[in-house]
Amino acid sequence: MKNRLNQIIDWMIDASIDVAFLNSTENVFYISNFYTDPHERLMGIFLFKQAEPVFILPAMESGQLKRAGWEYDIIGYSDDEDPWELLKSKFETKELGQVEKVAMEKDVLTYRRSEQFLSFFPKVEVVSVEEQLNEMRVVKDESEIAIIRKAAEIADFGVQVGVDALEEGISEMEVLAKIEYELKKKGIREMSFSTMVLFGEKSGDPHGNPGDRKLKPGDMVLFDLGVVLDGYCSDITRTVAFKSVTEKQKEIYQTVLKAELAALEASKPGFRIGDLDHVARNIIKDAGYGDFFPHRIGHGMGINVHEFPSISHKNDGTLKEGMVYTIEPGIYLPDLGGVRIEDDVLVTKDGYETLTKFPKELQIIE
Amino acid sequence: MKNRLNQIIDWMIDASIDVAFLNSTENVFYISNFYTDPHERLMGIFLFKQAEPVFILPAMESGQLKRAGWEYDIIGYSDDEDPWELLKSKFETKELGQVEKVAMEKDVLTYRRSEQFLSFFPKVEVVSVEEQLNEMRVVKDESEIAIIRKAAEIADFGVQVGVDALEEGISEMEVLAKIEYELKKKGIREMSFSTMVLFGEKSGDPHGNPGDRKLKPGDMVLFDLGVVLDGYCSDITRTVAFKSVTEKQKEIYQTVLKAELAALEASKPGFRIGDLDHVARNIIKDAGYGDFFPHRIGHGMGINVHEFPSISHKNDGTLKEGMVYTIEPGIYLPDLGGVRIEDDVLVTKDGYETLTKFPKELQIIE
Repeated sequence: MKNRLNQIIDWMIDASIDVAFLNSTENVFYISNFYTDPHERLMGIFLFKQAEPVFILPAMESGQLKRAGWEYDIIGYSDDEDPWELLKSKFETKELGQVEKVAMEKDVLTYRRSEQFLSFFPKVEVVSVEEQLNEMRVVKDESEIAIIRKAAEIADFGVQVGVDALEEGISEMEVLAKIEYELKKKGIREMSFSTMVLFGEKSGDPHGNPGDRKLKPGDMVLFDLGVVLDGYCSDITRTVAFKSVTEKQKEIYQTVLKAELAALEASKPGFRIGDLDHVARNIIKDAGYGDFFPHRIGHGMGINVHEFPSISHKNDGTLKEGMVYTIEPGIYLPDLGGVRIEDDVLVTKDGYETLTKFPKELQIIE
Repeated sequence: MKNRLNQIIDWMIDASIDVAFLNSTENVFYISNFYTDPHERLMGIFLFKQAEPVFILPAMESGQLKRAGWEYDIIGYSDDEDPWELLKSKFETKELGQVEKVAMEKDVLTYRRSEQFLSFFPKVEVVSVEEQLNEMRVVKDESEIAIIRKAAEIADFGVQVGVDALEEGISEMEVLAKIEYELKKKGIREMSFSTMVLFGEKSGDPHGNPGDRKLKPGDMVLFDLGVVLDGYCSDITRTVAFKSVTEKQKEIYQTVLKAELAALEASKPGFRIGDLDHVARNIIKDAGYGDFFPHRIGHGMGINVHEFPSISHKNDGTLKEGMVYTIEPGIYLPDLGGVRIEDDVLVTKDGYETLTKFPKELQIIE
């Protein structure tokens, strides 16, 4: 933790930033090892070029913050106190001198809070802290990879539960309920996003919602799910056939699988990120389905299920060892249904490892 | 919907606001009947004192917006377009003249988006739109009440599932999983907040988290849960005893129940909102447990599970027919455990109705 804190302060010194304010649950967790969602209450870390950091949060959570290892200043406030008043006094004791540049989470901080924060520093230059945090978070360390690996294993298990639940006449929501039931029994409190279970033509809509559609022989079944474990996410998609499969369905499946494997095989340090999309998209285009793959190939994954970098064709960055992201090509045919195959990928020293390991050969479930 | 839109435009005219921007899922739903969470993509409604409103959203959702009944301008953008550029052109066609005052959701809009929005209108005065929306949303109409009534009924069912699942040795997470399983089977896709099932001493922490604590005879069991139905929330808490109950537990239970009933009985149009808290708190104080009731008595509820008004002792507002809020006193004894009883309350013409109806007499589950 200290290491991450120091990295940000070094960046602040280089960029002449006097004060930085981090207030998203995710960045605060990354810096402090303390995971909390304070809902409407103010919570966050103030960092200074030349003074000890301050953590502000509801008083009732101060104990948990200390137990998470925070060794610096803490302002714990009660519901009857104005946290901004307390901050103002604290800032005065820090002897900050002339503050000319501040950094904050522009994509997260609300306008109301920015008004309060900036009222302390008239005429200050405001920069974003996100790029720096993204750079740091994008390469995962060993302890982070260990957690994501375990989260991916639990996602594999979730797909298995879903496959085992398939029987004629069962509804999408019933299968979804069974998956989440088994995951909760394993102690998972939160899914990393709203679980998808889509049957037949419903899988043909990349934004479909599970409902009371009943399972019929000949349906493709698409599962997309992930769990939150110790603050980190997983995200897997698998598609299976129920009872039977047509030649057309097989062709789509094999095309998507080929595209997915190609993007996986391209994953290694130094490869241009945007080309992961090209590699897969070209295969789908060549097979004549280019118009039916309407989304990017994947996204970075870690504390957020969607995080930096976006794996889109426009991304000129290069892969580095320790990056974790999804590869998830799909083909969606409006009436026939859709196929998507998604893995969580870790970039290794000279290649990649898929952290999700559920089988990918086309399965026909009896 | 038209009625709500016109109400806001009337307010803009009265307050000389030239442009208003609504971008929370909840307020957009309230105005347009279109419920969407666009994640990181821009979505929202721009309203003008003297021009037709504009709805901006990802192009793939335009069809759903029209089906929800939106009859005005729509900007649907693709991932390759800059939505702010499209907005700028659209604004130019509106001939807005000199814009001097804009309103936005200060508590929701991010700093980054405020920079983009305000770059169109240099030196403009910025006011908050929240107070006006709160005033409108706080009184529910018949169709809203009908949905909340149904959501409350489903929450009652959730508690019943939880009570039925209790058996020696079962864990908190197992009971929680069974509740959510049965609710999902009924088609509920989202709980209105993270479900709570707490046993014994764990119920004594108002911020406790369900885990693998196993149920033992003599435990109090606290359930706190709610569902999202057609965009509206419910929220119920019940506490039961497992196998046996001590005199002390009984005393706490009866005190909380008495406090809850007193606040319910006080609910009618014209009553000071903050006094709902006083009425209940005085009963708990008189019984000697004032220090063990550390939170406000309740909160408004509707599209958000916590919304305006906060039912705290400081609230000088008065109740109006059609308001919906929770009443939820509790007593938490660190080792012994806690009791909370919470209902969803609707203010009627001359009194109140509780929308949650699960029994409140102390139950000892065998």
